[in-house]
Amino acid sequence: MTEKRVYNFSAGPSMLPVAVLEKAAKQMLNYENSGMSVMEMSHRSSSYLDIFEKTKGLLKKVMNVPDNYKIVFIQGGATQQFSMVPLNLLKNGKADYAITGAFSKKAAAEAKKYGDIHIVYDGSSNDFKHIPTQDELDLSKDASYLHICANNTIYGTEWKYVPETYGAPIIADMSSNILSKPVDVSKYGMIYAGAQKNMGIAGLGVAIIREDLLQDVAETTPVLLDYKLMIKNDSMYNTPPAYAIYVLGLVLEWIDSLGGLEVMKERNEKKAKLVYDYLDQSTFYKAHSDKENRSLMNVTFTTPNKDLDAKFVKESIEAGMTNLKGHRSVGGIRASIYNAMPYEGVEKLVAFMKEFEQNNQ
Amino acid sequence: MTEKRVYNFSAGPSMLPVAVLEKAAKQMLNYENSGMSVMEMSHRSSSYLDIFEKTKGLLKKVMNVPDNYKIVFIQGGATQQFSMVPLNLLKNGKADYAITGAFSKKAAAEAKKYGDIHIVYDGSSNDFKHIPTQDELDLSKDASYLHICANNTIYGTEWKYVPETYGAPIIADMSSNILSKPVDVSKYGMIYAGAQKNMGIAGLGVAIIREDLLQDVAETTPVLLDYKLMIKNDSMYNTPPAYAIYVLGLVLEWIDSLGGLEVMKERNEKKAKLVYDYLDQSTFYKAHSDKENRSLMNVTFTTPNKDLDAKFVKESIEAGMTNLKGHRSVGGIRASIYNAMPYEGVEKLVAFMKEFEQNNQ
Repeated sequence: MTEKRVYNFSAGPSMLPVAVLEKAAKQMLNYENSGMSVMEMSHRSSSYLDIFEKTKGLLKKVMNVPDNYKIVFIQGGATQQFSMVPLNLLKNGKADYAITGAFSKKAAAEAKKYGDIHIVYDGSSNDFKHIPTQDELDLSKDASYLHICANNTIYGTEWKYVPETYGAPIIADMSSNILSKPVDVSKYGMIYAGAQKNMGIAGLGVAIIREDLLQDVAETTPVLLDYKLMIKNDSMYNTPPAYAIYVLGLVLEWIDSLGGLEVMKERNEKKAKLVYDYLDQSTFYKAHSDKENRSLMNVTFTTPNKDLDAKFVKESIEAGMTNLKGHRSVGGIRASIYNAMPYEGVEKLVAFMKEFEQNNQ
Repeated sequence: MTEKRVYNFSAGPSMLPVAVLEKAAKQMLNYENSGMSVMEMSHRSSSYLDIFEKTKGLLKKVMNVPDNYKIVFIQGGATQQFSMVPLNLLKNGKADYAITGAFSKKAAAEAKKYGDIHIVYDGSSNDFKHIPTQDELDLSKDASYLHICANNTIYGTEWKYVPETYGAPIIADMSSNILSKPVDVSKYGMIYAGAQKNMGIAGLGVAIIREDLLQDVAETTPVLLDYKLMIKNDSMYNTPPAYAIYVLGLVLEWIDSLGGLEVMKERNEKKAKLVYDYLDQSTFYKAHSDKENRSLMNVTFTTPNKDLDAKFVKESIEAGMTNLKGHRSVGGIRASIYNAMPYEGVEKLVAFMKEFEQNNQ
């Protein structure tokens, strides 16, 4: 392929591996001699079921999912699932939520519709620069679960440990760091994610649920928000987002072929170190997150003022890098460097940062 | 393209126009010199917003949507929307439902979770061969709405008229016949559809809603099932199924370039006539639906017995036609001939039917 490609630092939907896009393009009119596109396949056909099973199997392998966990594919993303969590997992009406950014705040507000929600930590007073330590969590003794957002795209922070609870299972929204590093799934009650960052395209949600946590939902629960029903029907109660699942399969093949999540972690640490090291020695740029909570996926920082932030974004586009503008709620610069961002893209970013600093002292 | 392609008679996901697939493949690594795939675009970027607005505009144009209707894109398909309908539109807790097949039955069962649902017609006693006439509808005087399923894929029936009510707006699930012919949108309160038949790929739902029908939902409604909120945020409260919306845009461009829905109707009538005429003169095959209710999209029929049905399906695959097996709940043969099925595919089917009849008398 000789296509012109830009380095796309979007927070999601975001860059995909070129190998994935090339394969999707190649198979578009005729998937493996089936005479049709994956887009056109009946979700109950044997050709499609092969893709579906292969994708589920690869996810289990790559994430090392224990046998007592079920994998579910649903429509929607994190928003759908943070609604599903309280509807499916509030056993006694009580749950704990840690607020470390925009999505964990939204998730807690949604859960409050259905139960008695206790906020164990709220980072809004420190501009969400910080992820709470174990000691900073005001955990309940009788919570049905503890909900956390494992990586906060807007603020560029990431949980670096799995909290201990009084027995409550941990439900983690991993939308923006799933597949970026190995995770001990057995330490979680449930992991969920929207696919549009490290898993492919928007419109697919993935959940990995410890089977014993599943319970019957209230009768008034909308049918498609029932995890137990979805699992009973192996994610095919209704037509699944079939093409997005196929793209996830291509992404997992790519990860697996490179050596799995240990390799992803090495690559991601190397990329993140390049930017953070540069930020740390600079007096021009200022990193947003506390040092110990820095996200490997989303690097957030500012220049000395808003005018320079805007100039930085404008000139970066001219230099062949896109979507470096920080989220509209916080401003500044955000470089999202998911699995598919090549090292060369980060090198180019740092070289640009250096030049911009020199030109705008 | 010299790719081998089969005639795919799947009920959905189903055939897409080759022109759509070719364009998607061509733009996969670099959409219009943006340096990225549509799959990789931030849904808030100007490149993507152009695609989004163009798609919405084309749908409005092609379906001639009046200005007092809003177009919403959501994740999910018909199942998500038949949950949303009662949650959003039950004003006094009462609604009318006509049961003419599997999805209208599922929709009524879901609505019963939330209100007093009156069944105005139930076709189960006649194996869903029949669509009720106006006189056969036992309509309520105080229903919030009348829900119908405009085309029943499993049984191959289609409403050929828009019922009159005592003022209740009509909510129509058009998942399997939207874009197949012109529709007077102003006769409906709301039209909804999953995209995976005539609108592209699974994982996208479209709704066209008369704006004055929108109301505030109960506080306990899951956030993403709130049409008013989705409309307020122009379908971007959460990340929309962005790639599926792009594919819908390509499909709408294709329809528009051919002359719009009048031309689709002519093409579809011509294709359906070819099969139905053959069925009517045959004593070997038996059409399932009553003559006056026959679907233009799904032609359902049987051979003299189940063994021959199975043989028909097997041999049709060898002849380069797929997915002709009837739905597992009814058996027999089903030929789904949506917009993207070329006339040549139907000619090939009828030739095969003729030959099969001669060989198996």
